Amino acid sequence: MAGKGVKKKGITVSKDDDFSGWYSELVQKAELADLRYNIKGFVCYMPWAVMSIKKMFAAYEKKLESYGHLPLIMPSLIPESNFHLEAKHVEGFTPEVFWVTEAGDGKKKFEERLALRPTSETALYKMFSLWIQSYNDLPFKRYQSGSVWRYESKMTRPFFRGREFHWIEAHNVFATLAEAEAQIIEDMKITHEMIGDEFAVPIIFFERPKWDMFPGAVKTHAADALTASGKVIQLPSTHLLGTNFSKPFDVSFVDKDGKKKYGYITCYGPAISRIYGAMIAIHGDDTGLVLPFELAPLQVVIVPILFDKTKDMVLSECERIEKMLSGSGYSVKVDARDDKSPGEKFSEWEMKGVPVRIEVGPKDVEKGQAVIVTRHDSNKEFVKKDDIEKTVLDISKKFTGQLKEKQAKNFDGRLIDCETFSELEKAVADNNMVRCGFCSMELPGEACADAIKDKTGAEVRGKRVGKEDKKFAKCVVCGKPAKETVYVAKSY
Amino acid sequence: MAGKGVKKKGITVSKDDDFSGWYSELVQKAELADLRYNIKGFVCYMPWAVMSIKKMFAAYEKKLESYGHLPLIMPSLIPESNFHLEAKHVEGFTPEVFWVTEAGDGKKKFEERLALRPTSETALYKMFSLWIQSYNDLPFKRYQSGSVWRYESKMTRPFFRGREFHWIEAHNVFATLAEAEAQIIEDMKITHEMIGDEFAVPIIFFERPKWDMFPGAVKTHAADALTASGKVIQLPSTHLLGTNFSKPFDVSFVDKDGKKKYGYITCYGPAISRIYGAMIAIHGDDTGLVLPFELAPLQVVIVPILFDKTKDMVLSECERIEKMLSGSGYSVKVDARDDKSPGEKFSEWEMKGVPVRIEVGPKDVEKGQAVIVTRHDSNKEFVKKDDIEKTVLDISKKFTGQLKEKQAKNFDGRLIDCETFSELEKAVADNNMVRCGFCSMELPGEACADAIKDKTGAEVRGKRVGKEDKKFAKCVVCGKPAKETVYVAKSY
Repeated sequence: MAGKGVKKKGITVSKDDDFSGWYSELVQKAELADLRYNIKGFVCYMPWAVMSIKKMFAAYEKKLESYGHLPLIMPSLIPESNFHLEAKHVEGFTPEVFWVTEAGDGKKKFEERLALRPTSETALYKMFSLWIQSYNDLPFKRYQSGSVWRYESKMTRPFFRGREFHWIEAHNVFATLAEAEAQIIEDMKITHEMIGDEFAVPIIFFERPKWDMFPGAVKTHAADALTASGKVIQLPSTHLLGTNFSKPFDVSFVDKDGKKKYGYITCYGPAISRIYGAMIAIHGDDTGLVLPFELAPLQVVIVPILFDKTKDMVLSECERIEKMLSGSGYSVKVDARDDKSPGEKFSEWEMKGVPVRIEVGPKDVEKGQAVIVTRHDSNKEFVKKDDIEKTVLDISKKFTGQLKEKQAKNFDGRLIDCETFSELEKAVADNNMVRCGFCSMELPGEACADAIKDKTGAEVRGKRVGKEDKKFAKCVVCGKPAKETVYVAKSY
Repeated sequence: MAGKGVKKKGITVSKDDDFSGWYSELVQKAELADLRYNIKGFVCYMPWAVMSIKKMFAAYEKKLESYGHLPLIMPSLIPESNFHLEAKHVEGFTPEVFWVTEAGDGKKKFEERLALRPTSETALYKMFSLWIQSYNDLPFKRYQSGSVWRYESKMTRPFFRGREFHWIEAHNVFATLAEAEAQIIEDMKITHEMIGDEFAVPIIFFERPKWDMFPGAVKTHAADALTASGKVIQLPSTHLLGTNFSKPFDVSFVDKDGKKKYGYITCYGPAISRIYGAMIAIHGDDTGLVLPFELAPLQVVIVPILFDKTKDMVLSECERIEKMLSGSGYSVKVDARDDKSPGEKFSEWEMKGVPVRIEVGPKDVEKGQAVIVTRHDSNKEFVKKDDIEKTVLDISKKFTGQLKEKQAKNFDGRLIDCETFSELEKAVADNNMVRCGFCSMELPGEACADAIKDKTGAEVRGKRVGKEDKKFAKCVVCGKPAKETVYVAKSY
């Protein structure tokens, strides 16, 4: 929409043609993150992103509290010896830890290294051992919000992945395995309510294969969202840790029968910054950002069409509308800058993902109307001035649901059933997610998973949770009888 | 109120007799923090404290945004070389820095040390240099909320001081010194609105003497709150950095006249966890926690007086009241546990600082009334059932203001004017804050300040801001003509 002679500020590559290039431009041009910070893999999150991320944290925390989790704040540093209490955990996380070894002018060297937490099991469970004494203390449900640090070698992409990210982690202890398993179901329900409904990102929950579990877990369930490029991005996972940690950390309780027993632990880690990345990647288009209505830093922008003679009249109508919508609780502002044309303003606020634009020109004022344009579907309509508030209310109620519906269709359209390896290769090459038969999710199946990874770059994501799935006769790789139906996709 | 044979759970020492002992018991018995974490100087914040701290962060962030600050999220790590750009800053902070020197299994050593941020000037201003180009970009007002780490040698006390604490820092750039100075005034206004009005903690703002400024600052203004022990605790400070950082970090802009100029920077750092500590120290009493109404995790507790025959009737009336108050937006619950006596419940919720207790027994139900007790003044009244909601509303409106009023009286009562050094010694020994004449706030005055510190343990806090003060003829130490009126107190 930029006029002649105006510098090209929009995104220059199409999301369909070059997802990576598109995402980089989106992050830069919508001013979401700055990658020029002078430590590799660390980025600065800019206000437009942070305003949405803060809303996401607040909504997620409220939801967790409504399910009985209480908040904690734990230290960010963990003594190295804590990690060594669970063998698989230390093996899995040590390669990724940033270590604090000294303080001050350098004369103070710590006797043991202190980890910048990559995750908090080994900090929390030492304390859980002190806090939990009796069956009366159970169930014990806690969460904390904060930063974690992982020295990952994978390519960093802002929000998706980075060496510091921002998450919530919930950790729970139960008297019985059945209660712990019920918590896993509850975690998945919370995930659908938050990421599916509130953030409009459709997900599938998978039980991960044995070779792809959280270090120290008995069972890992993880949500995958499908991006437009056909790659999945892993969103929250919830882990059944059983008694793997409660035994070495002595998270035990005296039961009603007077006997000491170990608690069953579960943990759940929604990475809000990563969810934000997935959300903007999935909803955004070639014009810029698209955000769920509730998460947009600015929900309604009013753009006056200004001419010298009618300027006062038009601005006064804009301010009336602003006051009315602001009074109803919307985040709204009039963009009255006089060094930008209306077209430039339209482009700028489309780039920023403002859900509703109201245009008011002198003819509109005369006719007692305004133009209302919605960001996600570019729908434009003339609305009588008395109907503006009701129209915005209608849009606000439907907006996020419409985003979700659109993405759910994309998801379904990209799911391909495959009977043979060559079908699988073609489907993956065409940016799809594959459903197929597979020999085993136990360790013997790993060779077949490696074969898929080597030839196509795609991974076995696991078997779908909570839904009876189509049966296949044979493993798509080795041809042995298929014990499982699994999903295969490339991932970020 | 605990009955015979009940284990003593209350605080066993009086706040007036032994403030330190009282505070330690308060933190432990109200379950606010656990000091048993296995790194020295690091503590775990427990749910009852975190619920209030989260409300404090949200209220403070909302206030800052209403004054035009936008949120950022910066990396927690800062390259050592950034610190070296401002000489006084590196000198002031290096002794307190935790250093990350390696990652993973230890083979990866970083070429330069990475600081866990003790404060973010040197991370932010590198980026400000990129983000600010023209006068159009100014004023530039940003804030972030997060953890900072300082390897301090002073004794750690939970919330007051610790090696990791939780704060907000706001950093601003202006085109002129006058605008920067106006920001300092605004920061002090915000502090009074938040800490004074919302958290009910009376403060005085001081301009600190030259020898007690933030490393790299031109001028430091800091708020002090007075505790019951007569010691002050420093609450937020706001610093005029002038161009001390903008020159080495090249935070510059092209002005309207086409010339490159350096920005004037200010920074402001409300440490929420420390403010929480001051708040509970100042409001708490020998029965436990006292909290401003809005910050209490639970605002109203309803305690039924249960007997077998009337149990159902009493519980049903309690639930009716709960539903009514919950519907009006209060955080409220019925404590129907049957393994605790009413007296035990009273003590427990007094310890936790619940502002309003409603007691309902069978006689109350018969008479159509309830007993309402307020935490801060132990006031007890019988209220007709139809008046309960209105009574709670009245209490909620007045509660926090009454707390503030009580503390303001304590503050005034502990401020003593002194003409001589012996008067000062006595006043400090009697747990007061002293107002006196002083030779100079410039560096030559430091010797007199040291003399006070050596003989009494008290410090010169600076001169009061924003109020015409009483004049003294002579410096209380050296007897030279007094250029300033300063305040002297011991501090945490």
